[in-house]
Amino acid sequence: MSLSHARKFMDEALSLAKAASDGGEVPVGAVVVKNGEIIGRGANRPLAQNDPTAHAEIAAIRDAAKALGTDRLTGCDLWVTLEPCAMCAGAIAHARIARLYYGADDVKGGAVAHGPKLFTQPTIHHRPEIYSGIAADDAAILLTQFFKDRR
Amino acid sequence: MSLSHARKFMDEALSLAKAASDGGEVPVGAVVVKNGEIIGRGANRPLAQNDPTAHAEIAAIRDAAKALGTDRLTGCDLWVTLEPCAMCAGAIAHARIARLYYGADDVKGGAVAHGPKLFTQPTIHHRPEIYSGIAADDAAILLTQFFKDRR
Repeated sequence: MSLSHARKFMDEALSLAKAASDGGEVPVGAVVVKNGEIIGRGANRPLAQNDPTAHAEIAAIRDAAKALGTDRLTGCDLWVTLEPCAMCAGAIAHARIARLYYGADDVKGGAVAHGPKLFTQPTIHHRPEIYSGIAADDAAILLTQFFKDRR
Repeated sequence: MSLSHARKFMDEALSLAKAASDGGEVPVGAVVVKNGEIIGRGANRPLAQNDPTAHAEIAAIRDAAKALGTDRLTGCDLWVTLEPCAMCAGAIAHARIARLYYGADDVKGGAVAHGPKLFTQPTIHHRPEIYSGIAADDAAILLTQFFKDRR
């Protein structure tokens, strides 16, 4: 994949993160990509949707699965601005996501490079390729600004 | 809680599990209970709903959160026929479920007593009280029969 493609997908995820924070939600955004096209989008919306499971990754996965008419996103990539939590990492495994690209590290809530490191667990039934640190500064600035504004 | 109450909630979860298997899905069912009343129900439906996140626990949590008009199920209990996976255990933590009651162990996919043992992880931000083995034989028989019929 070219660098401009990588930037394009993460830019769209960052736009969704920005939209989340404009609505008062923690700014995280995600897209699902198949064959170079975005087929699912998600912004973090637990407050607006009264749904504790409404993280950006879950929303993007559900959106993409509905678009494809299947519960398996084989051959699809997930781009997300923040390291996924355990719930979302589990969903990524269930969806059979081929490649996971994420931005900023989440030392407190992340479950990929931190905490349970879910994809290193012997019982995990699917492991995507993992690429981290993509546009990480942009994602981190959105988060820092959000929490600063709320203090 | 009396034994008859415990049985009542797990029986409802078992009925939902049975409904799932009647629809060709792996038989798992769940209910969310607040103040002795069922406020959310879920049956495992990833195939029917084209949604890899449509596990029984996720569906029951979303149902209950919608009913209460909040993303926090503080003071609520979750009853589920099978040990939750990492995705669902993560959702249970996000939802702030007070007590988790589950039936059969899931040695391969479970993330509570097996695998990452998510609620023992230092980074988990909420830990419910956990009770396991409730009507475990009934839940296990449903699962065994389902997989036997599919062979």
